[in-house]
Amino acid sequence: MTVRNTSLDLTTDVVALTRALVDIPSESGEEVRLVDAVEAALAALPHLTVERVGNSVVARTDLGHPERVVIAGHLDTVPAAGNLPSRLDGDLLYGLGACDMKGGVSVALRLAATLPAPAARDITYVFYECEEVEGDRNGLGRIAAERPELLDADLAILMEPSDAGVEAGCQGVLMADITVRGERAHTARAWMGVNAAHRAGAVLQRLADHTPARVVIDGLEYREGLNAVAVRSGVAGNVVPDECVITINSRFAPSRSPEEAEAYVRDLFPEYDIDVTDVVQGALPGLGQDAVASLVDVLGVVPRPKLGWTDVARFAALGVPALNYGPGDPVLAHTAGEYVPVAQLRVCEERLRGWLAVSP
Amino acid sequence: MTVRNTSLDLTTDVVALTRALVDIPSESGEEVRLVDAVEAALAALPHLTVERVGNSVVARTDLGHPERVVIAGHLDTVPAAGNLPSRLDGDLLYGLGACDMKGGVSVALRLAATLPAPAARDITYVFYECEEVEGDRNGLGRIAAERPELLDADLAILMEPSDAGVEAGCQGVLMADITVRGERAHTARAWMGVNAAHRAGAVLQRLADHTPARVVIDGLEYREGLNAVAVRSGVAGNVVPDECVITINSRFAPSRSPEEAEAYVRDLFPEYDIDVTDVVQGALPGLGQDAVASLVDVLGVVPRPKLGWTDVARFAALGVPALNYGPGDPVLAHTAGEYVPVAQLRVCEERLRGWLAVSP
Repeated sequence: MTVRNTSLDLTTDVVALTRALVDIPSESGEEVRLVDAVEAALAALPHLTVERVGNSVVARTDLGHPERVVIAGHLDTVPAAGNLPSRLDGDLLYGLGACDMKGGVSVALRLAATLPAPAARDITYVFYECEEVEGDRNGLGRIAAERPELLDADLAILMEPSDAGVEAGCQGVLMADITVRGERAHTARAWMGVNAAHRAGAVLQRLADHTPARVVIDGLEYREGLNAVAVRSGVAGNVVPDECVITINSRFAPSRSPEEAEAYVRDLFPEYDIDVTDVVQGALPGLGQDAVASLVDVLGVVPRPKLGWTDVARFAALGVPALNYGPGDPVLAHTAGEYVPVAQLRVCEERLRGWLAVSP
Repeated sequence: MTVRNTSLDLTTDVVALTRALVDIPSESGEEVRLVDAVEAALAALPHLTVERVGNSVVARTDLGHPERVVIAGHLDTVPAAGNLPSRLDGDLLYGLGACDMKGGVSVALRLAATLPAPAARDITYVFYECEEVEGDRNGLGRIAAERPELLDADLAILMEPSDAGVEAGCQGVLMADITVRGERAHTARAWMGVNAAHRAGAVLQRLADHTPARVVIDGLEYREGLNAVAVRSGVAGNVVPDECVITINSRFAPSRSPEEAEAYVRDLFPEYDIDVTDVVQGALPGLGQDAVASLVDVLGVVPRPKLGWTDVARFAALGVPALNYGPGDPVLAHTAGEYVPVAQLRVCEERLRGWLAVSP
């Protein structure tokens, strides 16, 4: 691909800015050029105080307003898939990260550049690294750990693609390995062993028969899920396997704690070894909180529940209500053909500006 | 390890000869040094006509007897596992291939060297390559395909370890992949897909519930088996898998044809895709045949059914009754600690010599 610039002009329109962002490659771990460009562009704005944490950038207004809102987005993308450089086809802007989430980042950068004096709330912009990889590399997580005061706010808006609607809260995720054991034997004398794969049939059947709960919170239905995502068994073609490992992925409503989610799985499979390999709490939608209610009202959208896990949970863990609101269809994220509709870029920018520019 | 010689002294006793064979490494495909040594030792015996087919050796007496018996063994071993050189510990001879099957080969070589004029039957000795690997490399199979007349006989004795007992016939083996299909979805919206791993629970449960048949032939009970030997499913940690492949291993009685064995599996799982990847027929025990009955009588052992598949089936396919008779516990085959009892080496040599040296 051709790199057309490494400095960013935040005065250009949101479509041109999105294209410029897409055309600076920033696969996870390789974001430094884009981070440098974002930092430099923000540092040039006298109304912002800019700090860098690793390869993440935090920029704040400090007008002394009684409320503060975080507007956040990650700068990294999944690996390229022949989808660079950016390409405008009618009203759709194609290219790596156009949907997830350089469109949302572009909206945030436009607000940062053009709202020197928000009317009622100070704003903290957060542009961070390594969202698309292992959680312990996540730039937002690093800020939360090292500089949590930078994330203090009454509301956080994560500009992940949500089709320009509000996706509130998010479900938690638990990953676990269920190990079913048996005893090896030669298949010609199978009765001398115990086939672990055969025994695993009962586990898989129980998963098939399981009906996940639907949990309603603030009027939103969080539909839980419990799925085997991997099954591994096998020693050799002539050996009765002595082990079968079933990896399960549980999506649990944000009203459940990680401990409750784990207990639920253990209660469902009391007779097997269960190794919980990862568990992250969800985030409550918080629609009843003033800051959230006011934003939802101004945006004029009907909130939907967020069923996948997103970084809103990192804010929730800090006690900051958070929601996803950004341009782009989330289903297109991580696809080679991802795009963002120009109309959604514009509507997100306009609505957020309207909310931030006008006193409540 | 230390190689102590590359020529073989067939006049030494069976224990020393077994140790010499063990101490010439001959992993499958790497047998040439051992094959050369065996060929040279046999070619030095004036009463034998020796031919080489690939890395297999065939040596025959030709006294004009009305009957002929094949005595066969493979020269290759599985890979070494820290079990070289050979080691004598009391009455047990340890080392790679001691059990499977250089002990049996040693007995056969001793008979070849010391029975210049068998009383009632001509003898064809077959020492072959690549038994421990894919069937299409098997040296006995190559002889059967290229020089089937070399295997013509009234009876074949395969000197595979059988604890110095007679293991008659062998069961057939069928390998098949059962593919259970579903539809991918993100685990946060699992209801939009169909979990193939969950559906596979019914297949595994059916295998768990299945009771294999016991088929009695010539008074021997062949206990069949039907086992999942591998289960593979999984796309990614957050994806409902759209496929689960279960590899099954069927052991079927020698009275069933491969076609019957395949139909049996298809009838058991009519609703799934089944890909039969390999099927080999078994071998009937043939205890009613004169040649077999006479040998069993002389050996003074009660025949047992052979439940695993062995190369006896290659003889059966040529119309030659065949059985397994050799020193060593078959359960020790392919183990790092394999050994052969000295007493079994001696009893196998003595009984076979007794049978071959005396007119019926």
